[in-house]
Amino acid sequence: MKIVIIGGVAGGASAAARTRRLDDTAEIVLIERGGFPSFANCGMPYYVGGVIQSRDKLLVAPVQMLRERHRLDVRTRSEVTSIDREAQTIQVRQLESGESYFESYDKLIIATGASPITPPLPGIDNQRVLRLRNLDDADAMHRIATADAKRAIIIGGGFIGVEVAENLVHRGIQTTLIERGTQLLGPWDPEMVVPIEQAFKEKGIELLYKTSVTGFQPCESGVSVQIENQPSREADFVVLCIGVTPENKLAKEAGLDCGQRGGVIVNAHMQTTDPNIYAVGDVVEVHDIIGDCPTQIPLAGPANRQGRIAADHALGRPSQFRGVQGTSVVGAFGVSAAMTGWSEKLLQRNNVDYEKIYIHPANHAGYYPGAEGMTLKLLFSTSNGRIFGAQGVGGNGVDKRIDVISMAIQANLTVEDLEESELCYAPQFGSAKDPVNMLGFVASDVMRGDQPVTHVDRLLDGTPDGTFLLDVRSVPEFQRGHLPGAVNIPIEELRERLSEVPQDQQIVAYCQVGIRGYLATRVLMQNGYNVANLSGGYKLWQRYGIEPAV
Amino acid sequence: MKIVIIGGVAGGASAAARTRRLDDTAEIVLIERGGFPSFANCGMPYYVGGVIQSRDKLLVAPVQMLRERHRLDVRTRSEVTSIDREAQTIQVRQLESGESYFESYDKLIIATGASPITPPLPGIDNQRVLRLRNLDDADAMHRIATADAKRAIIIGGGFIGVEVAENLVHRGIQTTLIERGTQLLGPWDPEMVVPIEQAFKEKGIELLYKTSVTGFQPCESGVSVQIENQPSREADFVVLCIGVTPENKLAKEAGLDCGQRGGVIVNAHMQTTDPNIYAVGDVVEVHDIIGDCPTQIPLAGPANRQGRIAADHALGRPSQFRGVQGTSVVGAFGVSAAMTGWSEKLLQRNNVDYEKIYIHPANHAGYYPGAEGMTLKLLFSTSNGRIFGAQGVGGNGVDKRIDVISMAIQANLTVEDLEESELCYAPQFGSAKDPVNMLGFVASDVMRGDQPVTHVDRLLDGTPDGTFLLDVRSVPEFQRGHLPGAVNIPIEELRERLSEVPQDQQIVAYCQVGIRGYLATRVLMQNGYNVANLSGGYKLWQRYGIEPAV
Repeated sequence: MKIVIIGGVAGGASAAARTRRLDDTAEIVLIERGGFPSFANCGMPYYVGGVIQSRDKLLVAPVQMLRERHRLDVRTRSEVTSIDREAQTIQVRQLESGESYFESYDKLIIATGASPITPPLPGIDNQRVLRLRNLDDADAMHRIATADAKRAIIIGGGFIGVEVAENLVHRGIQTTLIERGTQLLGPWDPEMVVPIEQAFKEKGIELLYKTSVTGFQPCESGVSVQIENQPSREADFVVLCIGVTPENKLAKEAGLDCGQRGGVIVNAHMQTTDPNIYAVGDVVEVHDIIGDCPTQIPLAGPANRQGRIAADHALGRPSQFRGVQGTSVVGAFGVSAAMTGWSEKLLQRNNVDYEKIYIHPANHAGYYPGAEGMTLKLLFSTSNGRIFGAQGVGGNGVDKRIDVISMAIQANLTVEDLEESELCYAPQFGSAKDPVNMLGFVASDVMRGDQPVTHVDRLLDGTPDGTFLLDVRSVPEFQRGHLPGAVNIPIEELRERLSEVPQDQQIVAYCQVGIRGYLATRVLMQNGYNVANLSGGYKLWQRYGIEPAV
Repeated sequence: MKIVIIGGVAGGASAAARTRRLDDTAEIVLIERGGFPSFANCGMPYYVGGVIQSRDKLLVAPVQMLRERHRLDVRTRSEVTSIDREAQTIQVRQLESGESYFESYDKLIIATGASPITPPLPGIDNQRVLRLRNLDDADAMHRIATADAKRAIIIGGGFIGVEVAENLVHRGIQTTLIERGTQLLGPWDPEMVVPIEQAFKEKGIELLYKTSVTGFQPCESGVSVQIENQPSREADFVVLCIGVTPENKLAKEAGLDCGQRGGVIVNAHMQTTDPNIYAVGDVVEVHDIIGDCPTQIPLAGPANRQGRIAADHALGRPSQFRGVQGTSVVGAFGVSAAMTGWSEKLLQRNNVDYEKIYIHPANHAGYYPGAEGMTLKLLFSTSNGRIFGAQGVGGNGVDKRIDVISMAIQANLTVEDLEESELCYAPQFGSAKDPVNMLGFVASDVMRGDQPVTHVDRLLDGTPDGTFLLDVRSVPEFQRGHLPGAVNIPIEELRERLSEVPQDQQIVAYCQVGIRGYLATRVLMQNGYNVANLSGGYKLWQRYGIEPAV
């Protein structure tokens, strides 16, 4: 058996190692265009920023180890230029010598990944317009960031843009981030990334939203970035992070089917439309288990597992990939944002009937020192309790809660199952009612009709006619800022002051985070009022950046 | 509706608050023997040690808040002395005045908790023999620990014993821990608590195992502890932490059924054998969802949820408690130990057919600074992949992995589902192949017969006849220490040196943590050898404290 793998990072490397373990006699050829297979591409921004000081640390599995321990025929600086499916051969070009040769295969695994999107803008070939895909890119950026660069412009506020921005700040570089959209980290809902945006601003990063770049020109300080309807801006260098696209050229030219967004189409065994050719990692279209539809999500975890599955199947095993749910995390300046499943905007775009709730718990018992706050958002169905997705942002412990909910989604659990979760508790690790339990309590209350909720985003254009905003916080809290037009009755006095609450209006009760608002909602419901709790409370309202009434 | 709740911490407080939210007109009487309902009992050791500096922090929900916000009729320093089920009344004694009165109820919720076991040893009433159950206890211990106490003896190495020991060290008190058994933290398997025991020794805590205390006597320095077959030991004070027993006196005297270990027997609605009386928290016997049998586990999370469920059902809702799986965590000196489900010893005691594996991953990508190591153990069925339990010990991130596996157990997922888990990954949070995935990979490999494993505990009495120990680490690693009688063939040379491996023996391959051992196992299997990988490798072997061969 001869297995040829194109691309030696993540999915490709996993496929190679798994193949070797399953078949010690197989001939395994691993062809890598760059100099280093199995390098830590997720570590590159941190190498640029000096968080990871040694470049050697990025070389996870040195070529020598792959050769000696796994007996892989590793060929670096080699590019596959075509696939002949009929002959079962590929053509390989040695990048250093320029010479080409043919290589045969019994099974071929395409793991070419995805490449940074490079729009056809004038001047984009400028050497100071950098991207961050491979070690050569990281080296180039490291060189310029550790030289005398003073200003940088990052284009695109996704994962890589956010991580690069943090790391350029670590290098003392004045950084501007230009984003065409209206938020950082597009996969998240906008209100959930505000703490990251706030951290960016506190660190002096300039955020330009709804801003389009139209071209680049060399200038004295380095490069001048032309911006639509704005003066151009100069910087020592530019980093292009506007997303990635599947590197499907080889597959396409070989006549393999690709999806709408370019991903190579594979079955659950990671087989392409040619049964002798597999594809894994960022180059493939995957099954979205939330929407039961095709999607394209570049994630390292699924890429590794797909490599494993392709190797299994190429060697006659029935392994199947189940699809992705989009679990991811990003951190910057001590704030982390994590998510799993679908966002609210994705649910809206697909016309899914959903409800949402927000809570603001601490990562562990508040009475134990060092508790850090977070905001969690849960998206679910009120008809059957199905969990569509969850997002978290804050300090320590956000990733833990999203991981737990990710497992719940994988298992098709409902919000009522979250109520009953039994999670680790000691005061320095969690709470007796863990944030995951709290999400379950609140969502289940909503589902059972015990706690009608309403949302800040319905109040952004002003309070609708016939709505009475009831602030049940203490008087000092109210005085420090409240929703425009809100009336303050502290929860402790509500029962005695019910006559001040109009019976013919829709009441929206709120407090700081939602707990007293819930209690007020219960009191009012039982007194015949039409009432809803403002989920996430005043704290969430503040995230929308509206000036408070005082 | 009049609901009377006996006991105001955890389960009782949750029941009271939930009752109020569901029924704003209910009469809710909360009777607490101590001075403070809803205090943070899990925080007490940390208050003693000064980690939590302000005593006020332990008062989670002050009485005033319970009265004003939740309209609870809170009666502190009040002890219920009897229940008249026929009359639906209880007798209450005011501890300060000594006077008693009767109180009627429609529904009664018993949340009396569990009390520290106090064996009938001579001299145990000595005022310097302390326990740690309520705030009065914490105050007493805080007083003595912040005065001039120099030496303390802790009896019992469970959760409380471990937490108190850490905190007495924080106070600079020379601490001895006496344990009748042979390990700390009895619910864990012994090899999984070694890092905590090592931390204890490094911090100067003296650990005395297999040691029984026979009595106490006053002495000049404070109290003298008599020990079986050993000289007695003196200390300024003693802390008794040998476990807790359900405080079931009231229930028993009222004729309610109790289980073998004393827990009040309840149905899934938390109803006792009297349908008007509920019981929740540490006083009840619960359903063990791993063994489908009754058990007794004092845990704060389940207690809180049970309180909620009892309130629901008392008010006519069908809520049910599902049972417990024993998820817990404890930390000391930066080492944490977490577990969920059954331990190996519990599986053995119940004659369950199981397999186990160990891995030693880092909490996040090794190339990102600050990665901390951990050891994870997974217990599962090789016939269907069912997860019986998991344990972890190490630095940061242990609780996260156990929480994720806890959710998998709750959902009846298998080890093959762990393979496919999609968890948060960025280099500072995890790994593309998260430790949970790795557990799934290894356990599934074992289940499918791809990776036969054997275990250190089978080699403790010496290498069995006909077994060949093959160390596939590098020569320098081997030279630093190895299993007695092992032969060293580095994995990179194994294929060329196969002739040195005897074909007629059972081969046990091992490396440092199990990865190279697995690769060697695959190579040897495919060459016709009878081979097993030593799960957890040399690193686990070292945990058993055997002198290495060099």
